[in-house]
Amino acid sequence: MVDIAIIGKGPAGWSCAMTARMRGLSATVIAPKNDTGWLRTAERIDNYPGMPMVSGREMLASFREQALALGAEERHGLVRQIMPLKDRFMLLVENDILEAGTVVLAMGAARPTLLPGEEEQLGRGVSYCATCDGMFYRNKKIAVLSASPQGAEECRFLAGLVSALDYYSLKHHQAQELPPMAVGKEEKPLSIGRSEEGLLLHTDNGSRLYDGIFIFRAAMPLNMLLADLATEGSFIPVDRAMKTNVPGVFAAGDCTGQPLQIAKAVGEGNIAAISAAAYLAHRE
Amino acid sequence: MVDIAIIGKGPAGWSCAMTARMRGLSATVIAPKNDTGWLRTAERIDNYPGMPMVSGREMLASFREQALALGAEERHGLVRQIMPLKDRFMLLVENDILEAGTVVLAMGAARPTLLPGEEEQLGRGVSYCATCDGMFYRNKKIAVLSASPQGAEECRFLAGLVSALDYYSLKHHQAQELPPMAVGKEEKPLSIGRSEEGLLLHTDNGSRLYDGIFIFRAAMPLNMLLADLATEGSFIPVDRAMKTNVPGVFAAGDCTGQPLQIAKAVGEGNIAAISAAAYLAHRE
Repeated sequence: MVDIAIIGKGPAGWSCAMTARMRGLSATVIAPKNDTGWLRTAERIDNYPGMPMVSGREMLASFREQALALGAEERHGLVRQIMPLKDRFMLLVENDILEAGTVVLAMGAARPTLLPGEEEQLGRGVSYCATCDGMFYRNKKIAVLSASPQGAEECRFLAGLVSALDYYSLKHHQAQELPPMAVGKEEKPLSIGRSEEGLLLHTDNGSRLYDGIFIFRAAMPLNMLLADLATEGSFIPVDRAMKTNVPGVFAAGDCTGQPLQIAKAVGEGNIAAISAAAYLAHRE
Repeated sequence: MVDIAIIGKGPAGWSCAMTARMRGLSATVIAPKNDTGWLRTAERIDNYPGMPMVSGREMLASFREQALALGAEERHGLVRQIMPLKDRFMLLVENDILEAGTVVLAMGAARPTLLPGEEEQLGRGVSYCATCDGMFYRNKKIAVLSASPQGAEECRFLAGLVSALDYYSLKHHQAQELPPMAVGKEEKPLSIGRSEEGLLLHTDNGSRLYDGIFIFRAAMPLNMLLADLATEGSFIPVDRAMKTNVPGVFAAGDCTGQPLQIAKAVGEGNIAAISAAAYLAHRE
């Protein structure tokens, strides 16, 4: 079990990990391998104290190196769900379970917008996890809807199982190398419904029938990530100690709201680590 | 008139100045020349993201250089008082006036403890300002009580005016070079009173009579700095936008309370600059 599970590998996440380590706590930073945060693409940042005129990519590499040197651990994968237990949290990271004493949410401001009908069909043909649910669609016809580069990777796995695979992009990103049997579709998915024959994907160019629809995004919707988490719009309200409404769960950085700034994220990550340490010490 | 007057040249102050400049606002960082903050003496800091294994002195020098390169101004001197006017603030910096649209308090956690009787005799023989009040004590007998290295400097000025000068240290600091006519006293000042003959300084070794008592500290008591400022103990309560209870006055860094951490101070300075910018834009 890790003391602090930190979700997100931006400035808030790495800052939190550093201070956790300085306080003698174990800290695991969890995020999909492909970083989709805005900072990665920033050409130059001038107002982060101590690092004048660096690119976002350089800054992130420097933060990561410093945190790992202090003993923080890094884990690749999307956190799909956080389950609060009596004395700990269980995190579903892709298909693995990670146990943690506290959780710090630091996954940035990007919140996915669900398709109409998506939530209703989740677990009834709609899935976010190829490894978990792929087997159920052996020799079936599926659609893959992807808003992240990871979608193409998952396609390769699913292509070995299913009989037909249509690939839809949920937003503009670089063209992906799809497996030969996958068919890239140009239509824009608009909503998900159901008929007696199966799932219906409605696009801007009609509707198609599928046995299953897999959806890949870089982040989970907050209410699916942690059921009881209070939100305000797409942000997570916190107090000055970075506490969310769920005891033992803290938030830091862009996901807590304006201003979306590196210095602010770094400061909040620092505070979240100290609040998490106090929470763990108090509970013992 | 400056857009943002920033009181304090620690991490919060410099961070605030950088973001203010990035937002196109003029920013002046004001603090006594001799830095007495704890960070200056820190041998090594490990958990500030982006600057692994630096000393506090190196970090502060780097922050300062970066802020000045962005166009922030630096001004030496103790801010004695902040007066809110209808559309601006007047700051008494030593004996000069600085006008500012907004004020960010970032002077660290060190708060002076007043001597019993000090506040009652202020302006009645007790003074914090040699240049302002020295002339009133020509050929008189004064005491200088000093909790900062600046006290000895002020002694040199006062020595040219008065007929007798006793120097008392309010806390342990390096022995100062006093002017020849000044008499260094070993007693510890305990309180200030008044008799018919003048001011009485009570020490741990009896009482002495003076015409004037000059007191030098690295910071002003908060209630004297800004009359209406709400405080909680020695800290300034703020909301998540770093607003104090006084409109147009923000606070950042150690002076807002725990945790006393560099990353937290840097983040709060950043937020304070953005909140100050919003305040100015809204008022126009």
